[in-house]
Amino acid sequence: MSSPRVTLYANVSPAAQCVTVALEELDIPYEIKTLSLIDKEQKSDWYLKINPNGRLPTLIDHSKEDFAVWESSAILLYIAQHFDTEHKISYDPVSEPKLYSEQLQWIFFAHGGIAPMYDESTRLFSVLEGRLKDREWLVGPHYSLADIKAFLWIHGAKIIGLNLVDYPNLQKWLGRIVSRPKTDKAMGIPERMDVETFVKKPIEETRAIGAALFGFKKVE
Amino acid sequence: MSSPRVTLYANVSPAAQCVTVALEELDIPYEIKTLSLIDKEQKSDWYLKINPNGRLPTLIDHSKEDFAVWESSAILLYIAQHFDTEHKISYDPVSEPKLYSEQLQWIFFAHGGIAPMYDESTRLFSVLEGRLKDREWLVGPHYSLADIKAFLWIHGAKIIGLNLVDYPNLQKWLGRIVSRPKTDKAMGIPERMDVETFVKKPIEETRAIGAALFGFKKVE
Repeated sequence: MSSPRVTLYANVSPAAQCVTVALEELDIPYEIKTLSLIDKEQKSDWYLKINPNGRLPTLIDHSKEDFAVWESSAILLYIAQHFDTEHKISYDPVSEPKLYSEQLQWIFFAHGGIAPMYDESTRLFSVLEGRLKDREWLVGPHYSLADIKAFLWIHGAKIIGLNLVDYPNLQKWLGRIVSRPKTDKAMGIPERMDVETFVKKPIEETRAIGAALFGFKKVE
Repeated sequence: MSSPRVTLYANVSPAAQCVTVALEELDIPYEIKTLSLIDKEQKSDWYLKINPNGRLPTLIDHSKEDFAVWESSAILLYIAQHFDTEHKISYDPVSEPKLYSEQLQWIFFAHGGIAPMYDESTRLFSVLEGRLKDREWLVGPHYSLADIKAFLWIHGAKIIGLNLVDYPNLQKWLGRIVSRPKTDKAMGIPERMDVETFVKKPIEETRAIGAALFGFKKVE
């Protein structure tokens, strides 16, 4: 295995997994370090020095004097700028300025909209369903950061039993995404624990993990 | 007056005002079109064609075949890329990649964090207070999109009576920002109605306006 170019501080959550998806899709050698929410490791002094917001994930770029990048969407855009120079999963701001802006619009839509509030989910699902009516991907001709940022929350909704039967285009899009081998692999990084391990955890931790999965931002 | 280079569909809210601040700071000729939330103009067919999310603001760039940009933060980044080539209020991704990434981190912090949930405000204010301890601006040596995205929510909190006495650095930073003549001018665009006009409005509209001011995202 190549020596890691980046280190990702993570927990099991859509926010961290969207980053592992990007890293896997681009074959970037990376190291994962999981922090324990129950031990409040993300609020420890050493971590607050690299991420003043005290949340996960944070990416450390060893090729840039261990520069720290936090906020999952900012990490995606950092990875795109520095490691996706062939624009396999992103659009080029210079040669494709409109697609680049559309990519940003859908990233912010997902960042501020889907993530914090599941109660608004049906309206947001309808917006995505409409967008995907005539297209395979949220922006332009290929899979991009916009899809990566948005799909994990929808996938999480499916896991907790939200019915997507009224959103056929959304379902097809989700199918297209999870059938990508590298994305599928990344969805298991950090490793999700099995149900038996999960229920043995203290209630505070299961709550924190549940909240992270359901997409609420209140997890500390 | 020069003919407008862009049109901004807006209402009175921090999301729209962060855009007018950027336009004023860069002296970009623009036209404002206010939409009525009570008439649900932002859900009309013609508007949904330019903004499928049915929210305000949306920027139309007349110099790029009326390309539509929505999500306030995506609009800020679009304005920076296309109209702030001298980097007066933004950082250059190519020559200043670390500052550019830090700017993105704080924009996403404000976009996903401060905006939708005021109940978490004291924690978020503390994060900003810490960040501003040894610096004048959130990122790098000058006023930038990161400050512009974040300050209007804090300012809104102050208006509704949230006490900032425990956040001296935040207060000083806010003072530095609102003393900028162009920013100060932009904070009145779209024009805020006077209290008398406000209380004569139907309750649904005052609620919608209130919610927009308080930073909740549930306003439809």
